[in-house]
Amino acid sequence: MGKMICAGLGPGNPDLMSVKSHRAITSAHHIAYFRKAGRPGQARQIVEGMLRADAIEHAMEYPVTTELPVESAEYNAALAGFYDDWAERLATLVKSEDVVVLCEGDPFFYGSFMHLYERLKDRIEIEVIPGITGASGCWTASGVPMAWGDDVTTILAGTLPEEMLAHHMRQADAFVVMKLGRNLPKVRRALHAAGRFEAAWLVERGTMAGERVTKLTEAGDAKPPYFSVVIVHGNGRRPMKATP
Amino acid sequence: MGKMICAGLGPGNPDLMSVKSHRAITSAHHIAYFRKAGRPGQARQIVEGMLRADAIEHAMEYPVTTELPVESAEYNAALAGFYDDWAERLATLVKSEDVVVLCEGDPFFYGSFMHLYERLKDRIEIEVIPGITGASGCWTASGVPMAWGDDVTTILAGTLPEEMLAHHMRQADAFVVMKLGRNLPKVRRALHAAGRFEAAWLVERGTMAGERVTKLTEAGDAKPPYFSVVIVHGNGRRPMKATP
Repeated sequence: MGKMICAGLGPGNPDLMSVKSHRAITSAHHIAYFRKAGRPGQARQIVEGMLRADAIEHAMEYPVTTELPVESAEYNAALAGFYDDWAERLATLVKSEDVVVLCEGDPFFYGSFMHLYERLKDRIEIEVIPGITGASGCWTASGVPMAWGDDVTTILAGTLPEEMLAHHMRQADAFVVMKLGRNLPKVRRALHAAGRFEAAWLVERGTMAGERVTKLTEAGDAKPPYFSVVIVHGNGRRPMKATP
Repeated sequence: MGKMICAGLGPGNPDLMSVKSHRAITSAHHIAYFRKAGRPGQARQIVEGMLRADAIEHAMEYPVTTELPVESAEYNAALAGFYDDWAERLATLVKSEDVVVLCEGDPFFYGSFMHLYERLKDRIEIEVIPGITGASGCWTASGVPMAWGDDVTTILAGTLPEEMLAHHMRQADAFVVMKLGRNLPKVRRALHAAGRFEAAWLVERGTMAGERVTKLTEAGDAKPPYFSVVIVHGNGRRPMKATP
């Protein structure tokens, strides 16, 4: 009987995965990862050059769903079936051998791996290796400390309604907005409504090739790449913060 | 001219630091770290057995401040003087050699290193290597995925006022409370007020020797160790979440 190991990959730069994930990946016989059909896949690209010569790769390709709206019942049924199917296939493999599943960022923090985990956690042994989040990679790339002392830090998805984004942006001392893409104009409006626009940074492809860090006021109107976040740093609620 | 490298150490288990931090630490000639006077120090313990035989260690011992209240002007003056002093000493060293500064967790996320960084960033070259946060280490240890889809995730300090804690606990889908210690009774009251007590977990020494994971309802009244957090996991705002 083998086990499933989910290796958190961190924010994108291969040197930023943990020593433990690196060891699991370089010694794995079976490697599985999610990707869009027809794409190399970000997770697979991060481990390029690290796999054993005899590694067997299992590319878990998301069902083609561009013709279905993301919140439709059909879309969700297709996706649920896809996770069901791969959960069964990997559970069968684990009967005889270990399987390493790659996961960008930190697996338990908005990771697709969680859909396999929920289906299999009571049936097979699963070890999850945490990773540096994409958010950490991006705020480090910004060159400005993120949160001090008693700062309240919030992580938001750009897919949330504008009013709700603005509400949380007002209440947090420091925050990150993920899932930008076509949501960036809405995120800009929410930042304005919350009075935080001037303090916002846009970090594109943080820690990866093509990294770009700009104040949002200077970022222009182009749609950002998938791996982008908006960041507003905290200033510290306590007198302990260094006076610059 | 050398540079300063801040190596994020991750949540405590040495295998969970990044490959890049591991490389910086094992090759460093000068290593600096914070600790309480008379203690080995958590950062130094994590790298035990990893240092070069000829490594020169710089233990930055916090000034003894037990007789001063944490928010007093004297306490903050003592602490500011301590950071000023070490910033100067390390800047002098960096004129001739690289210096690696250790930092538990992720350096830009509530890390003491930020106090050195703010003092030196315009004067010397500084490279910051991110790390897995203690929070990530703890929610991974809990064995339950933390945040799904559009969940709003918030990081709180147990030192915040009770009303403010309860307010943020009501608004977040998923949250972590750090800095527990003597604040745990207050954090419990805030969880009750927010209607989140039944869903709360206590993770002590996550990823480290002596790790303990319990539902808060079953945790008892003992004061938790310094490296402890309270976690409430998100359930997902989107239909994409797997139906368990």
